[in-house]
Amino acid sequence: MRGAVLYGPRDVRVEERPDPTIIEPTDAIIRLPATCVCGSDLWPYRGIEPISAPTPMGHEYVGVVEEVGSAVKNIKPGQFVVGSFFASDNTCPICQAGYQSRCVHAELMGEIGTQAQFARIPLADGTLVATPNIPSDDLIPSLLAASDVLGAGWFGAVAAEAGPGKTVAVVGDGAVGLLAVLAAKQLGAERIIAMSRHEPRQRLAREFGATDIVTERGDEGVARIKDMTDRLGAHSVVEAVGTQESMMQAIRSTRPGGHVGYVGVSHGVELPGEELFFAEVHLLGGPAPVRRFLPNLIDLIWNRKITPGKVFDLELPLEQAAEGYRAMDERRAIKTLLKC
Amino acid sequence: MRGAVLYGPRDVRVEERPDPTIIEPTDAIIRLPATCVCGSDLWPYRGIEPISAPTPMGHEYVGVVEEVGSAVKNIKPGQFVVGSFFASDNTCPICQAGYQSRCVHAELMGEIGTQAQFARIPLADGTLVATPNIPSDDLIPSLLAASDVLGAGWFGAVAAEAGPGKTVAVVGDGAVGLLAVLAAKQLGAERIIAMSRHEPRQRLAREFGATDIVTERGDEGVARIKDMTDRLGAHSVVEAVGTQESMMQAIRSTRPGGHVGYVGVSHGVELPGEELFFAEVHLLGGPAPVRRFLPNLIDLIWNRKITPGKVFDLELPLEQAAEGYRAMDERRAIKTLLKC
Repeated sequence: MRGAVLYGPRDVRVEERPDPTIIEPTDAIIRLPATCVCGSDLWPYRGIEPISAPTPMGHEYVGVVEEVGSAVKNIKPGQFVVGSFFASDNTCPICQAGYQSRCVHAELMGEIGTQAQFARIPLADGTLVATPNIPSDDLIPSLLAASDVLGAGWFGAVAAEAGPGKTVAVVGDGAVGLLAVLAAKQLGAERIIAMSRHEPRQRLAREFGATDIVTERGDEGVARIKDMTDRLGAHSVVEAVGTQESMMQAIRSTRPGGHVGYVGVSHGVELPGEELFFAEVHLLGGPAPVRRFLPNLIDLIWNRKITPGKVFDLELPLEQAAEGYRAMDERRAIKTLLKC
Repeated sequence: MRGAVLYGPRDVRVEERPDPTIIEPTDAIIRLPATCVCGSDLWPYRGIEPISAPTPMGHEYVGVVEEVGSAVKNIKPGQFVVGSFFASDNTCPICQAGYQSRCVHAELMGEIGTQAQFARIPLADGTLVATPNIPSDDLIPSLLAASDVLGAGWFGAVAAEAGPGKTVAVVGDGAVGLLAVLAAKQLGAERIIAMSRHEPRQRLAREFGATDIVTERGDEGVARIKDMTDRLGAHSVVEAVGTQESMMQAIRSTRPGGHVGYVGVSHGVELPGEELFFAEVHLLGGPAPVRRFLPNLIDLIWNRKITPGKVFDLELPLEQAAEGYRAMDERRAIKTLLKC
């Protein structure tokens, strides 16, 4: 099969990779109609997360089940399925509490590399959720978004306790941040402030439900949020970048007793204990337990209540994955869909 | 009046201080039957929080109202009252959300210094809660504990979401940690693990409801908690120290999706973002909004359901405050009560 492999900083190649096979009896093999590039793929692409050997890329996926292992009971060949970037058994106490990304048997799909025509999905019964039928083509981008960026934005909004009567601010205008805006809207937030200085992203944020745009960053951004909230800060802030500046911007934009949901993969962040202590905000974040939200997200997409696939503003054949990465790296594209 | 004043590291003196008077119309003046020394007073006492001038000490208090300002409507002279170490209006949006320690008009009682015979209480109607009657002498230590250490331990347990079916671990065996054990018990926790290596404190922890004692600290303590919880970690962990080691011990002892409530005043702590991200635990802490809990705590004490005053294992006249500090500094006493 064809698949994308990272050889070093800014060196992504599409090449022949071995077709996946069933390794564990709990595995399934899926055929992907499309895959995509994640903002978090840019960390190794830019060399900020160094790699030591050529590395298959990708952790987002949807597809048709081709084959299942002997222990798979619920997922069947022929079904169209969506899964998360962490495979999970969905039965351990951590999964049952809703934190499937930290399942005691969690497997990171990034190790498998789903920017490819086929993928092996571990723990298929726990990991995969089948759609009601084979989706029409126009639903595929949105279902693919549910695999990670929608689930991550949704978790950010849930962790930030976005909901009725709440003012929600979102730090970060990548796909996850934009979909956190969509999630906050779906969760009933009263006011949704998108922090973005890029006009096309501002437009999409408004389309997804943002009521206000703040273009300032850092302490100036914090001051604007305070100005808009009677000097108190937002009730709920989603952090969707992962840098020191964005984390501090999120914490400082939150009112005492408010909630920060942080879903930007943390890089080089050190939280000062004393400031955090006196900030007195709730913090929850980490790799999103997308599996918790998938049934609901699939339902919303299937019934055309939400169109998270709009974050894909560049569509290329898998063979042109390198250009897909480049466009995101240069911020010419929010998110790249790769047709397999 | 007589009051305790810190002159420099390990130099506490009891001396004449001016009697307090009504400054703002929202003030009340109370006469204290007793006051006490807090673990957090040891930070400046030890010189870790340097002071630039002689500083009146103390922020915990109960007492009889002597006089009220013209704008005080609900609190009356002659009432016995309990308040928190932060004065608060109890009406602003932050107070109404239950975070009175971050009231938009919050005033730190430590600036006033309540290790004294009298104290001025700002925002009396918002800050003070009256007891049903004048308490008998044996209730005074427990009511005094409610002013800070019980409220702080309670907040830690609430922030950690201690409750039925939960395994709760408490890091720190000072008065706040011990009272977090009591709080976890009252909140219905199934299993309460006190982390302590001091036999008298272990005994009090057991009396307050601890089901298990762990004497190991740091990574060894974490390993013990994992051993006791099917390798998952505790559901709820209260941090009641405030150091880097204790915060990391708390975070690492918590299962993914679990809750850390941190109430030890943070000193020199830096939380590593990446570890926190992948830990995926809820964090909430800060100066306890004691006012939120006071009506319930007073009720439990008044009806002799709890005896938090047991944390006072040394009782001295106010004139001997220096010895009270010394005993706590040397860990000869858990907490010192000073009779005025």
